[in-house]
Formats: sequence, structure tokens, C-alpha cells
Amino acid sequence: MNAKKIFVINGPNLDMLGVREPQIYGAATLADANKIAEQAAGECGYAVECMQFNGEGEIVDALHTAYRQAAAVVLNAGAYTHYSYAIADAVKMLSCPVIELHISNVFAREEFRSRSVLSPYVSAVICGAGVFGYRLAVLAAAEKLSHA
Amino acid sequence: MNAKKIFVINGPNLDMLGVREPQIYGAATLADANKIAEQAAGECGYAVECMQFNGEGEIVDALHTAYRQAAAVVLNAGAYTHYSYAIADAVKMLSCPVIELHISNVFAREEFRSRSVLSPYVSAVICGAGVFGYRLAVLAAAEKLSHA
Amino acid sequence: MNAKKIFVINGPNLDMLGVREPQIYGAATLADANKIAEQAAGECGYAVECMQFNGEGEIVDALHTAYRQAAAVVLNAGAYTHYSYAIADAVKMLSCPVIELHISNVFAREEFRSRSVLSPYVSAVICGAGVFGYRLAVLAAAEKLSHA
Amino acid sequence: MNAKKIFVINGPNLDMLGVREPQIYGAATLADANKIAEQAAGECGYAVECMQFNGEGEIVDALHTAYRQAAAVVLNAGAYTHYSYAIADAVKMLSCPVIELHISNVFAREEFRSRSVLSPYVSAVICGAGVFGYRLAVLAAAEKLSHA
Amino acid sequence: MNAKKIFVINGPNLDMLGVREPQIYGAATLADANKIAEQAAGECGYAVECMQFNGEGEIVDALHTAYRQAAAVVLNAGAYTHYSYAIADAVKMLSCPVIELHISNVFAREEFRSRSVLSPYVSAVICGAGVFGYRLAVLAAAEKLSHA
Amino acid sequence: MNAKKIFVINGPNLDMLGVREPQIYGAATLADANKIAEQAAGECGYAVECMQFNGEGEIVDALHTAYRQAAAVVLNAGAYTHYSYAIADAVKMLSCPVIELHISNVFAREEFRSRSVLSPYVSAVICGAGVFGYRLAVLAAAEKLSHA
Amino acid sequence: MNAKKIFVINGPNLDMLGVREPQIYGAATLADANKIAEQAAGECGYAVECMQFNGEGEIVDALHTAYRQAAAVVLNAGAYTHYSYAIADAVKMLSCPVIELHISNVFAREEFRSRSVLSPYVSAVICGAGVFGYRLAVLAAAEKLSHA
Amino acid sequence: MNAKKIFVINGPNLDMLGVREPQIYGAATLADANKIAEQAAGECGYAVECMQFNGEGEIVDALHTAYRQAAAVVLNAGAYTHYSYAIADAVKMLSCPVIELHISNVFAREEFRSRSVLSPYVSAVICGAGVFGYRLAVLAAAEKLSHA
Amino acid sequence: MNAKKIFVINGPNLDMLGVREPQIYGAATLADANKIAEQAAGECGYAVECMQFNGEGEIVDALHTAYRQAAAVVLNAGAYTHYSYAIADAVKMLSCPVIELHISNVFAREEFRSRSVLSPYVSAVICGAGVFGYRLAVLAAAEKLSHA
Amino acid sequence: MNAKKIFVINGPNLDMLGVREPQIYGAATLADANKIAEQAAGECGYAVECMQFNGEGEIVDALHTAYRQAAAVVLNAGAYTHYSYAIADAVKMLSCPVIELHISNVFAREEFRSRSVLSPYVSAVICGAGVFGYRLAVLAAAEKLSHA
Amino acid sequence: MNAKKIFVINGPNLDMLGVREPQIYGAATLADANKIAEQAAGECGYAVECMQFNGEGEIVDALHTAYRQAAAVVLNAGAYTHYSYAIADAVKMLSCPVIELHISNVFAREEFRSRSVLSPYVSAVICGAGVFGYRLAVLAAAEKLSHA
Amino acid sequence: MNAKKIFVINGPNLDMLGVREPQIYGAATLADANKIAEQAAGECGYAVECMQFNGEGEIVDALHTAYRQAAAVVLNAGAYTHYSYAIADAVKMLSCPVIELHISNVFAREEFRSRSVLSPYVSAVICGAGVFGYRLAVLAAAEKLSHA
Repeated sequence: MNAKKIFVINGPNLDMLGVREPQIYGAATLADANKIAEQAAGECGYAVECMQFNGEGEIVDALHTAYRQAAAVVLNAGAYTHYSYAIADAVKMLSCPVIELHISNVFAREEFRSRSVLSPYVSAVICGAGVFGYRLAVLAAAEKLSHA
Repeated sequence: MNAKKIFVINGPNLDMLGVREPQIYGAATLADANKIAEQAAGECGYAVECMQFNGEGEIVDALHTAYRQAAAVVLNAGAYTHYSYAIADAVKMLSCPVIELHISNVFAREEFRSRSVLSPYVSAVICGAGVFGYRLAVLAAAEKLSHA
Repeated sequence: MNAKKIFVINGPNLDMLGVREPQIYGAATLADANKIAEQAAGECGYAVECMQFNGEGEIVDALHTAYRQAAAVVLNAGAYTHYSYAIADAVKMLSCPVIELHISNVFAREEFRSRSVLSPYVSAVICGAGVFGYRLAVLAAAEKLSHA
Repeated sequence: MNAKKIFVINGPNLDMLGVREPQIYGAATLADANKIAEQAAGECGYAVECMQFNGEGEIVDALHTAYRQAAAVVLNAGAYTHYSYAIADAVKMLSCPVIELHISNVFAREEFRSRSVLSPYVSAVICGAGVFGYRLAVLAAAEKLSHA
Repeated sequence: MNAKKIFVINGPNLDMLGVREPQIYGAATLADANKIAEQAAGECGYAVECMQFNGEGEIVDALHTAYRQAAAVVLNAGAYTHYSYAIADAVKMLSCPVIELHISNVFAREEFRSRSVLSPYVSAVICGAGVFGYRLAVLAAAEKLSHA
Repeated sequence: MNAKKIFVINGPNLDMLGVREPQIYGAATLADANKIAEQAAGECGYAVECMQFNGEGEIVDALHTAYRQAAAVVLNAGAYTHYSYAIADAVKMLSCPVIELHISNVFAREEFRSRSVLSPYVSAVICGAGVFGYRLAVLAAAEKLSHA
Repeated sequence: MNAKKIFVINGPNLDMLGVREPQIYGAATLADANKIAEQAAGECGYAVECMQFNGEGEIVDALHTAYRQAAAVVLNAGAYTHYSYAIADAVKMLSCPVIELHISNVFAREEFRSRSVLSPYVSAVICGAGVFGYRLAVLAAAEKLSHA
Repeated sequence: MNAKKIFVINGPNLDMLGVREPQIYGAATLADANKIAEQAAGECGYAVECMQFNGEGEIVDALHTAYRQAAAVVLNAGAYTHYSYAIADAVKMLSCPVIELHISNVFAREEFRSRSVLSPYVSAVICGAGVFGYRLAVLAAAEKLSHA
Repeated sequence: MNAKKIFVINGPNLDMLGVREPQIYGAATLADANKIAEQAAGECGYAVECMQFNGEGEIVDALHTAYRQAAAVVLNAGAYTHYSYAIADAVKMLSCPVIELHISNVFAREEFRSRSVLSPYVSAVICGAGVFGYRLAVLAAAEKLSHA
Repeated sequence: MNAKKIFVINGPNLDMLGVREPQIYGAATLADANKIAEQAAGECGYAVECMQFNGEGEIVDALHTAYRQAAAVVLNAGAYTHYSYAIADAVKMLSCPVIELHISNVFAREEFRSRSVLSPYVSAVICGAGVFGYRLAVLAAAEKLSHA
Repeated sequence: MNAKKIFVINGPNLDMLGVREPQIYGAATLADANKIAEQAAGECGYAVECMQFNGEGEIVDALHTAYRQAAAVVLNAGAYTHYSYAIADAVKMLSCPVIELHISNVFAREEFRSRSVLSPYVSAVICGAGVFGYRLAVLAAAEKLSHA
Repeated sequence: MNAKKIFVINGPNLDMLGVREPQIYGAATLADANKIAEQAAGECGYAVECMQFNGEGEIVDALHTAYRQAAAVVLNAGAYTHYSYAIADAVKMLSCPVIELHISNVFAREEFRSRSVLSPYVSAVICGAGVFGYRLAVLAAAEKLSHA
């Protein structure tokens, strides 16, 4: 395990951030979000490794890699949040801090978005703070690590 | 956006059309279906781009491509129709017409097939018309485009 | 049975088409819709008999008449779609093709509209295509008949 | 109130008895069923008045007439059984015996048929006995009347 | 639209008011109720047009007439309140005030009476005030009209 | 199989008939009920074998005996009706007519009594006719047998 | 009991009336509402005692006081309407008329607002009539008292 | 409105923080949490006003005060989160940023804690980050304010 | 009826008390529990008759005997508590006090244990007090009898 | 902690005991109930501190005081029993015995009363024994303490 | 405990194996099944004791005997699988391996068969393998024992 | 079709077997499991082809290959078991035996694991037998094939 690297894993449709429904997700792009995460991590003495996948299996793969390489994980699993027990199982397997992240306030939108199958297995959940949430999530991860 | 190309996106198990359960889906193959779509599109002045994927992430990818290249989308998402919020999010992002298509009458089969998580975000739904539904879907898309 | 006549049965409130909530149903009237159906049927070698009823029992009556006289039925049962098991029973009794039709995308509206008690007994369902759906429904019926 | 007349009220689609789905309902017609009821009533010293309506409101009307004229009611409300609270209210208003009747075993068919909104307000329920059930229902009504 | 006429539309079984279950609905008849409405309307400068129907389709018809002729509607849809989406659609179409009325306190009775499919589309709901509720409903309608 | 014997199987607490809650079940005893069944069977050319058990397993045993010895079964399974899938399985195994019987109108009582796990597997259901229902049930069984 | 005093009890957030979401509740303040109630009561020969509480226990206290002092109660329990069984119990204890009041049409808003735990225990319910509802509620209370 | 003051409102049982179930909530006290909030706010140029209430009505009162005095609110409503529509209404009324906060990961505990009736009306939700969450919540509030 | 005898009826698996899962049920045996009941009964002037059955039908039988012989019943029906409507019916038939008893706190265990189908028909419920609950149950029965 | 004092905490509307619905709760007053508790406690060597609150927050406060001062708690939380997670959290925090008490048999009344959100966290539950239940609850508490 | 004996306990209707619905359960009899189990056990060095009961209480008894005498249990509880918490409690009490067995694929049949109340307490579940499943179950038990 | 090859298809996270949560899944690796399957298959005269995929679409692909190449399939679909209708459709298409396998007893874990969307379409289900289950599954497949 690389005690100094935080994985920032983004799920389906987040590659379209800034393009897709800006009235909900804002104008910032995924590159902006990653930069925010990187900046916050640097302040705490961590590097980040940012990635994005539309495929469920690839996110499972990435979490397996995180099992071996990451000090912590920031996970914005997009819509998979609401039904991917495969990702939930991969999260459950991790012993490092996992911070679940949503850019928008998922509880103020369609009913299906108010249930996360991942939440029972993560350390903390942050939602509704926009791309600034990436900063908060990294800070939360770093704080968790400072107690480990 | 290529105002003259309609994407025909087929989901999981549709590569087995004609092989799989012909008593439900009929003897026509996916190639037959695509030909029907192509024929109808041609009559309306459109080209089609037909594709088939078993992976959920690949369908999300295809819809992202459609975002940039397609005038309309005909989407037969197969079983993903009933639970893939990832695909639903990708559909929701599109502003062009999206026609949801099912070959069989999904409402006359297992209970789980009567709920579509995609339907709230599409323009129209056509089901139970067999592979002839591909013709209807293309006509519906063309009609929608004629008002845009 | 008159193998050359397609019944187009419209249910409650469709007499107000074009008047009622045009932002949902559009500006076309029921007469327009019927004309679209007639035009499509003519192209396929069929006549249409168009009717509209606000009463549930009258729609049951019409379906009984269809049992004896129609080659196929296009049925837009309006709100009865969502709870009239009496109409469902009358549809179930028919052996000719029955195409369920909705002008708007019922799956994108109030929750109650996403359940049809008729769908399990019809041949095909078309929704969200506006009054153009009457053309699609007639085409679907004719296609079904061509295989019978 | 005519203490010697039993109303036999039949609901939607029962005019098609013998025609509609004979594998479920048998080959007997409504005229046969009414004759069975008449025969049984005669044996018990009652006349019958048999009627059939596809309209819900007409059944309500008939029950209002029964309020003033019938010694008892045999009610086969067809599919209205499962959702017509209007008919339920009209039944509830009656103080004479009301026997709910179904020709087929409704509990062995589609889920929706296993719930009757009328049952809480009737005297007895008979189902699955075929058109012979009309005899049983009349006998039950007569028995109830013999204690009144 | 006749800005000075209020439609008072009564649904199934209300013709039996005063006869049916007086321990719940009281001894007043529908004529009494209509008189109360007429009296209240007169005080506010309105005429009333009172009607009663046991058929669902006839209530839809009446609401269509109201669309063209009424300044406001007082609607006691009886048991249809709890399941008639056909009537709900007809109410939804109206832009004038619609006051939903129940004579008894429907919330203190059988479970099914506590849900109204009409309420989301009406202006106001009054229940449990007995036939005096007709006065309250007319006053509410007149008040709404005074702001229109 | 003894083509001339009808089993009348009574379930738990029916030994207390006439004692237990007479306002619901009436004053007649189980002996009275059996006599009614015997009388009706005799008229139709059948003998009856009447039995009562409080134990679920004993009712299963009795149905196994019926499998070998009975022409038909009248089954009042008492409260087991509502949850005994063991009895349901034993009923399902029988190919002879099985008439489900309830003395009171179970649909007008506690919610749990409105669901029968046996009904999907029986031939007919009779309820609410008091001990007279034993006559009706035997008649129904004999009628079924006359068609076998 | 003071046969001439009507308690008007207002619940949480009603002190913000006219400030809070005027597009839903209108511009009138609680003082305006109370004045309307007072005016109506005066016309009927009653005084009012108007109060407002954000605390659930205080509303229970007020209802206990009403038990000893009030001829009738007009109760707008705000959001407590939807879950406060403590207030429901206090209402249930009262034998005088209790009129449940809502300014907006609660049935046309969030799902949770369509269920009232108080309604089964009140005399009448008035909702959606704006602050004019205070007049209607007082009239309903006075009418109820005229029959007591 | 005091554009420079953030209200930190704590709900029931949070006065026992550090005492109550430290295996879930940790050893830090409410004073510690408030200090963390104060420190974070100071860094962003805000003052905090920290308060704690066991009473639901008092939290409603505090939110009304916030309506007039606060630039933003950090709200840890404790168990009221899961059922207090009164507090939800008070939150809904606020136009300033409201950050919902939970010390523990409520989604990993009893089922009832996974539903918040407040979330649909807040700006952001932070949970599972321990008392460090107070820092995150203040940062989120300040970030929201920087865009206002 | 023997006005001085209290039946203590124990259900399935209670013969294993002290053996089975002592961390939940404690080390005391059924003999100990019966002794506690006997001691308490003796103090109140009653004898006890203690029995235990694994069979549902036998418990029904015992309650029938209680109908004729017992002044009161203490009933620990074990797991049958949660689904035996047959036992519930036998309890319902009794007019003497019936005290439902559970050794452990059933509400703090698996979900299915929190519902008792017997409770609606008993006089009182005592749970979670260990075998001391047998004392409490007898005291409660005696108290009930002192008012009879 | 005062090892010799038992808190008897009564919730909303219990101040009306003896006044409110005596057919359900009996004629005894809260003072009578407290006296019964005091008497029982004295026999076991404990003092009682009896209190009653209509406010939820005050009950939370009292439980916090109990945390510091009580050897055990007898808690009749009235209607809060069914929804107050705030009180449940305060109970959960206590390590001393907590006995949940209901005067009436809550399981034989309205559906909502059959669910307690407190029960999972208490030691024992006693209901339906009338005010005599206060004696049983104190005995149960004392018994629990004798093992501590 | 006899470390070398495996109990094979069969539940209701399994005595009819080979007779009952052979299209579902096959033509093999229970004797055949037992022989298969005996053969497999012998290969692993175990004896079997095979039994069959239609009564729920007798299965509980058999499991109590198993508690004292069996090394492992193979349990085909028939329909009791789906609701017998009494049997579930008896299973839960066992510390030896318990293998739940179903001859048919219960998940492909009626809905009620897809829920087992026993499964949470057993070691392994085998279903759909026909009577060959008895071999698999014994092998699974032996394997479990080899690790004990 | 290669009548001698059994496909052993493993789903998401099974590549981590032996690493992931060994207290649930044991210390054996997927290589161990595959070896067990191979050994059992060899004994029965079959070869195995073992594969593992984290992606849902890849499992669909593998099942399509199995359609053409495999005599039978052993399928441990991991978490996809609980929601992948895409895989269910691919299983449904196969006419060869498919054995569903779970290493742990899924019914004794989180609620979501007790539902399999695959089970209705498979031949047999084996769960809770650890990696030894791979042996049992292959034996079951071979047994099924011996009857084909």
C-alpha cells in the first residue's frame, strides 16, 4: 500500500461534467474537479490518482488496485451508487478510508437517487457541495488517515 | 452534431436475436432489424449507425458519442432497461429525440420487465411490434426531428 | 369479422384534445388524429372506424363490437388505461391485434400513469409520439395482420 | 320491497359468456346462467329479475332499484369487483342479502382478481363453481331470507 | 364561460342521500344539499346548476360542459373520488376553481376513503361538515373567484 | 379411490363451533354442520366422511387419505387457510374437486382473513353462508363430479 | 367549558405566515388569519382565542386547556399534522368539534403532506382555501355546535 | 441578515456527545465540535453562533432566528432528522445555505437513520466524518456563500 | 370453570430452555420458570397447571381445555406467536384473562419477532423480563381476575 | 448514580389519565399510578421520582438526568413511543434497566400503536395491565437491578 | 452426540414423493431419496437416520433429538420452509451443520417458495438437484464436519 | 456444443477470493476453487473451462460462448446475482444445465443477498458450502447431464 496516494475514482457520465445538465452539476469539468482534489491532497501531504470509468467492472478493477496501492479512496460512483452491489462488495473489501461523494444534492432529486447501496460500507458521505466536494472529500480522507 | 444520422443502439443479448427464445423474439436476426431501420431511415432522408453492446459502460459510451454525432437515437437497451440508471443518466443528457424500443411486449412477461428506468427520459416508447418496431422507431424519430 | 376495418377507439377526455393542456398533448384535435389514422390505414388497404367515449361501459361495448367487426383495434383508453379491468377483460377477449396508444409519454408524468392494466393483454404499445402515434399504431396493426 | 323477487345482476363482459375465453368460463351462455338462477329461485318460491350491464353507473342504478324492489341480490360484478367502490357503496346501502358470485375461481388467476372491494359488504361469496354457481347463489340468498 | 354560474356536480349514490346510511350521511336529502348550495351562491351573486350522476363518463361529460359554462365547480364525486383518474383528468383540464367536497369525514372511515385521486388537481377540499359543506364549498369557490 | 365418498375436513377450533363466538359463527355445532353435509351428499348419491383436526399435520394426513379414498373434498381449514402452505401443497396434489369453505364472510373481518393460501389450488370457494355453506359445498362438489 | 369560546390553535412555522414561501401560503399574516377567524366567530356569537406554538408539547397543553375551556377548536397543526400522534391523542380526547385546517392544498404538494394522523379524530377538514379557510373553519365549528 | 454569522444548530442528545456511545460518536464533546466549527469559520471570515436543543420547537425557533440573522446554517438535527417535518418546513423557508451534518455514518446504522426528511431542502449533506465534519460543514457553507 | 387454576402454556422449543441459546434466554430451565409461576400463583391464592407443547394443534387443544377449566392463562407461545392464527383464534375464544409472555425482549431481535398475531386478542403482554416474567404474568392475571 | 432511585417518566396526555377515554385507560389518575409505583418500589428498597411531560424535548432531558441519577427507569412515553427517535436515542444511551410501559394493550388498538421505536433499546416491555402495570414495571426493574 | 450419525429429516407431503406432481418432483420415492443419502453417508463414514413428518411439532421434536444425537442434519422441511419460525428456532439452536434441501428449484415456482425462514440459520442450501440433492447435502454435511 | 466441457464462470470480486473478507469467504483462492471444480469434473468425465470477470457484459459474452460450447455451466455471478437481468436473460437463453453457486450462505447475510434474479432460470442452486460448493455444483451439473 502506498500510504501517500489517494485514489479519486469517478463513475459513469462524469466524463461529461460541465457538458451534461450544467443547471444541476455546474460548469466545472472533471479536470477542474481533479485539480481541486489534487490541490487539497497536496496540502495534506498526499498525491492523487484520478480516473474515470463508464463501466462497472472497471470501477471494481480500480478498487482492487486501490486495495493494493491506495491510502484512501474518494469515490463518486455516479448512478452506480444506487444499484451496483458489485462495487459495494469491492468497497466493503477495502480497509482504508473510502469517502463517497456526490456533486449534486442527490436527496433533492429523483427518488431513486436517495438510496445508496455503497453508503453502508464507506467511511463518510459528502454530497451537494459541487466540485468543491472533492476538496472536502480529500480533507475527510486525510483526517481519517491521521487517526489510523 | 450530424443532423442526418440516427444511432440505433442495441443492448445485451440482442446479438443472439433469432437464436434466443424465438417463440418470444421471432426468427429475425439483429442484422434483419438493422436493415429494417436502415430502410426506414433512408425513406426519411437519414442514415443509420447500428451497434450492439453487452456491456453497460459501452452503451453509456455510445450515448456520449451520440451526444456529439447523432440526430436521434433508437435505443433497445435490453435488460438494462429495467435497472441501469447509468444509461438513464446518459439518455437524460441528450437533447435529441430518443426512442425506446422493445421487440416483445415487455408488459406481458415477467413483472420486472414492466418497469423501465429509461422511459422517464425518452421521447417515445414502442414495444411489442417485433423487429418491425425498428421501422416504427425510426419513423417516430424522424417525425420528432421534423418538428425540432 | 370485417378483415379490412381497423377500429380506432378513444377514451375519456380525448374529445378535448387540442383544447386540454396543449403543452402536454399538443394542438392537434381528435379529428386530426383520426385523419392521420385513416390516412395510414388507407395506405395499408384498410378502412378505419374512429370513435370516442367518456364512459367505461361504452368502451367495453365498442370492444365487443370490434370482436365481431374489426380486423384490428387501436386503443387509446385515456385514464382508464390505468385502472379499468373491465376494459382489460374486453381486450383480453379479442384475438385480433390490439395496439395500445398514448399521445404523451405516460412514463414521464405522474406515477399512476406508468402502470397500464391493459398492456399485458395487447399486442403492442406506442406512447409519446404525439398524434403521429396514430399512424404508427395503424402501421403496427397492419404489420401484425400481414402475419396472421 | 318485493319480498319474492331476487335480482340477478351481471356486470361487464358477461354478455359475452360462452363466447369469451371458454377455457376459463365454459361454454354456457348468460341465458343459460339466468335460466339456472330462475330454476333455483322457483324451487325456493322466488322469481328472478336478470340483467346485465357493461357500465358501472348502470349497476349502481340497478342496485338502487334493488333497494326498493328486491328481496335479495345475486351480484356478479365482473371486473368491477376489483376496483368499483361506487358499486361497493351501493351494495353497502342494501340491507337485504347480497351474494357475490364469480363463475371462475378468481383466486387461481391474475393477482388483481384475488381482491374484491365488494366482499366486505356482501353476505356471502361463491366462486369457481361455473354457471352452477348461480344456483348456489340463489340457494344461499333464499337461505339467508328464511332467517330474516 | 358564464362567470356567474357555479356547477354543483354530485357523483354515485348521492341520489340516495337521506336514505342511505343516515348514521353516516345524515337525514338531509340531495335536494336539501342543493338548496343549501343555491342559497349560499345567491348570497355571493352566483347561480348554481346542480346535477347528479351515477356514471363516471357522465361526470366527465359534465366537467367538459363546466369547462365551457361554469365559473367554478363544487364536486362531490362520491366513491369515484378514490380511483377515477378519468374524472381527475377532466378536473385537471379546468382552469376555474374546483372545490372537492365530502359530506362525511372520509378520513375517519375505511382506509380506501382516505386517498383522493382528485385532490392534487382541485383548489380546495372540504369534508366532514355534513350538507352544510355545500355552503362552505360555494363560499370557498366564490372567494377564489373574487381573486381571479 | 372411492368414487362415492366425499371427505368433509374441518380444521382448528371448529370443534368449538356453536360455543365459540356465536355472534360470528352462529349457534349450530359441528355435528349440525356435518349432518347438513351428509344430507346434501345423500341427495346426490354420495356418502360423507366428516372429520375435524386442530393439528396442521393431521389435516395433511387426512388429505393424503383423501388422495386414495375420496371422490371430492370439502375443506374448512379454519385459520390454517391463511398461512398453511403445507396444507396448500397437500391440496395441490389432489386431482379430485376440492371445495374451500368458510362459515363466516372472511372478507368482512380482520385483514389477515381475506387472504387464503389454499384458494389458488381449490376448485371453488364458498364463504359467508353459515353452516348452510356445507350444503352448498357438497352440491358444488357433486356438480364438479358430474362433469368429471 | 366556556360554551362561547372557540380556540384557534396554530402550529409550527405559522408565525412566519406571510414571510414564508408566499407563493404557497400567500401574503396574509397570522394576525390577518386570526382577524378573519375572530370576525366569523363574532357573526356566529362566539369569541375566539388565537394562539400559535412551534412546540409539540405546547399544542398538547393547549388542547388540554381546550378540553376545559373551549366550545370548539380550529386546529392548523402545520407539519405536526403528518406525524404527531401525541397531538392526535389530545384531539381524540376532546368531545367538542375540532376542525382541521390547512391554508394550502396539502394534497397537491409533497407526498408526506397527503397523510394526516389527526384527521381520523377530527370533525371536519378544510384545506386549500387560503386564510379564508379560517372563516370556513369557524363557520363549520359553529354549525356543528348548533346541532350539539 | 448578518452576512458574517454562521449558526451551528445541534439537536437532541448532542449535549451528551462524548458521553453517549463513544464507540459510535467518539470521545470529543459538543464543546470540542463547536470549537472546530468556530476555528473553521474564523479562517473563512465568519463568526459562529453555536446552540443545542433537545426540543423540536426550539430548533424551529432557532431556524426562524437564523432566517433573520444568519448567513448560513450548519444543522445537526440528531434524531429529528428522520421524522421532523416541522424542522424540514423551517429549513425549507430559509434561502441561505443550510448544511446538514451527521457525526457518524448514519447509512451504516439502523435502517431508520438512512432516511432524512431534511435532506431534500438543504444545500449539502456531510456525514460520517466525526466532529471533523463540523469543519467540513463550515467550509461548505463558506464556499456556498462565496458564490451567492 | 375452575376459578382457582391458572394455565401456564408454553410453546415450541421452550422444553430446551436453559439449553438453547443461554446468552438470549438465560440459564434457567422450564422447570424453574414453572416453579416461579407456581410460587406467584400460590401467593395470590391460585394453583397453576404448567404444560409445554411443540405442536401447534396441541396448544389449540390446551386452550380449549382452558376454556372449560382455567381462571386465566399465561401463554408463551414461542415462535408460534408470530404466525399462528390457529392459536390466535383459540385465544380470541377465551373470555378469561390471557397474558402473553416472552422471556427475551422480542422487539430487540430479528424483525419477524416484533409482530405478534396473538397480541390483539390477549389482555396484557409482558416481555424481556426473563423467567421472572412468569411471576409478573401470574400477578397480572391475578390482578385482572380480582376485577372480574 | 443514585443506586436507590427509580425514575418513573410519563409522556404526553398522561396528565389527563382518569379523565381521558376512561373506557380505554380506566378511572385511575396519574397520581394513583405514581402511588402504585412508589408502593412497589418501597417494597423492593427503592425510592421513585415520578414526572410527566407533554414535550418530547423534556422527556429527553429527563432521560439525561436519569443517566446521572437513576438506578432504573420506568418509561410510559405515550404516543411518542411510536415515532420519537429522539427519545429512543436517549434511552439507547442509558445502561441502567429501562422498562417500557403501556397502560392499555396497544396491540389491540389502532395499527400505529403496534409499533414502538423504543422497544429495541429497552430491557422489558409491559402493556395492557392497566395502572397495575406500574407495579409490574417497578418489580421488573428491581429484578433486573438484583442481577446487575 | 453421536459423531457418526447424520439425521435426514423430511417434512410435510414428502411421504407422497413420486406420487405427488411427478412433473415437478420426479418419479423417485422418499425411499429412493433416503437410499441415496445412506449411500453417500456410507462413503463418508457416516450412518443416516431418515425420518418424515407431516406435523410441524414433530419436526421440532426431531431437531431436539438431533441436538443430542446427530453429527449433522439434512433438512427438507417442505412447505414449512416458508413460514415455520418454530422449526427455524429449533434449527438455530443446533451447533452442528444443518443442510437445507429442496428437491425442486423453489425459486422457479410460486413466489412464496422463494423465501425460506430457515435459511438464515442453516450452514448451506441445496435446491433443484432432484433426489440427487440428498447426495449433495450429505457430502456438504460431511465436508462441514471434516473442518469442525 | 462440446458435450464434454463445463464452463465455470465467476463474477465480480471473486478474483480477490482468499484476500477479501476471509471470515466470510474462507482462505481458499479462486485457483483453489477452480482446481476443485476441475477435479470433480474429471471424475465425471468432463473438462472444465474456468474464467472470472468483473464486468457484467463480459459475463454475458461468456454465457453466449457457453451457448455454443458448453455442456453445462457453473455460475457464481457474485453480486450481479442480485440485480443483473442482463445475465439472467443470457442464462434463460441456455438450454444446458446451469448451476448457480454461492460460496457463503447468502441468506444469512445482508437482506439484498437473499434475492437472486438468476435463480428462476437456473437448474439448481448451491450456497453456503464454501469452495467445496464448486465440487457439488459440478456433480449436480454432471448428474443433470446424465439424464439429458
